Amino acid sequence: MNLLLLEPSDFVGEDRVILRDRRLTHLQQVHRAEAGDRIRVGLLGGLMGEASLLRLAAAEAELQVRLSQPPPAKLPITLLLALPRPKMLRRVLQGVAAMGVPNLVLLNSYRVEKSFWQTPFLEPASVREQLLLGLEQARDTVLPQVSIETRFKPFVEDRLPAIARDTLGLVGHPGEFPPCPRAVDGPVTLAIGPEGGWIPYEVEKLADAGLTPVQLGERILRVETAVTALLARLF
Amino acid sequence: MNLLLLEPSDFVGEDRVILRDRRLTHLQQVHRAEAGDRIRVGLLGGLMGEASLLRLAAAEAELQVRLSQPPPAKLPITLLLALPRPKMLRRVLQGVAAMGVPNLVLLNSYRVEKSFWQTPFLEPASVREQLLLGLEQARDTVLPQVSIETRFKPFVEDRLPAIARDTLGLVGHPGEFPPCPRAVDGPVTLAIGPEGGWIPYEVEKLADAGLTPVQLGERILRVETAVTALLARLF
Repeated sequence: MNLLLLEPSDFVGEDRVILRDRRLTHLQQVHRAEAGDRIRVGLLGGLMGEASLLRLAAAEAELQVRLSQPPPAKLPITLLLALPRPKMLRRVLQGVAAMGVPNLVLLNSYRVEKSFWQTPFLEPASVREQLLLGLEQARDTVLPQVSIETRFKPFVEDRLPAIARDTLGLVGHPGEFPPCPRAVDGPVTLAIGPEGGWIPYEVEKLADAGLTPVQLGERILRVETAVTALLARLF
Repeated sequence: MNLLLLEPSDFVGEDRVILRDRRLTHLQQVHRAEAGDRIRVGLLGGLMGEASLLRLAAAEAELQVRLSQPPPAKLPITLLLALPRPKMLRRVLQGVAAMGVPNLVLLNSYRVEKSFWQTPFLEPASVREQLLLGLEQARDTVLPQVSIETRFKPFVEDRLPAIARDTLGLVGHPGEFPPCPRAVDGPVTLAIGPEGGWIPYEVEKLADAGLTPVQLGERILRVETAVTALLARLF
């Protein structure tokens, strides 16, 4: 945790915060904080700054907070991701939040196993927990918007064209395609497939919606690695 | 597993292979392979190609193998990594092998916890297992060289200058440094610090050995994410 994230409900006064949950445990056990310590904090959805730890007891911590700095800029991207397997999903959500992706669409695809949609890790509280871990890691305060699209065709036909309009639309796909561009200016819509890749029908439908296939070399990367590699290359 | 890796000891004839270990289980349970299936294979340290599954029994599989293609090129890099925590180490080793890093040095640093050096995941068999998983994922046959340097100063003073000579030497470090370059030509020596970063003394010693500090933006990334992001940006 490189940033202690606060919520409006933590405030007991204009600049006073009381913590009692996992953040208290973290201060005690990982940070090994002591009264007087200064800690980087951020208000969820708001500014970042510093807190003084006024009091650290077994059951609660009291902090005095000064918020002054804006969070880091987000990347100008909407990321469409074929729903990864549950274990990978959690890490992908953390990574996406840490890298500064503001909009994530988890999408169905022919090669997404049906059982993946049943995972408790897709429940809003679980998604939010992983996103918060990513924000705490990277020092950001703004949660990405995550939407869940269980039906490929209606989403890609009816909604994707409007999302992709006036953006550089890309679909990551191995094969004889141009390499993914580097250091682009302006907004991007990027679709990354499941393990095993998109099927040709899906690539065609994504292309109809404005997304051009690009590849990232011969090596087959895990989804979380591919996401990081493509974002690092694009921005 | 996107590539079934074979070793010389698996061969019972010039083009015949018998498998009995985890690769057999994988063929049975994950691949759900059947006699007649064609499977991508590679000879560890050698060529890649295709195999026909001649026979799949409970206790062994027999394959006929044709090897024809070279493995993908490695990245021209020596990666120095402050030893990550054990759980992260395994994923980093997989990722490094998958991305095509040929030389990895796991290095001590002031902020590496002493206990990390005691992990069984540093034992050669465990390191090799993770590297093989990375090769199988990415479709490569050549194991990276991994060396373990438990003493920062002698390594950086006595051995690093020769490694870094005639390469672009970089040390990833947050702060007021130039951004990491993109799409470089030629060989690179890159040092990535521990959680919490290198201490100033270490940055100075790395600079004396020929490595210039570069940064990757305001966001603090986990080590495995930083490794992927820096490699994707450099190459």
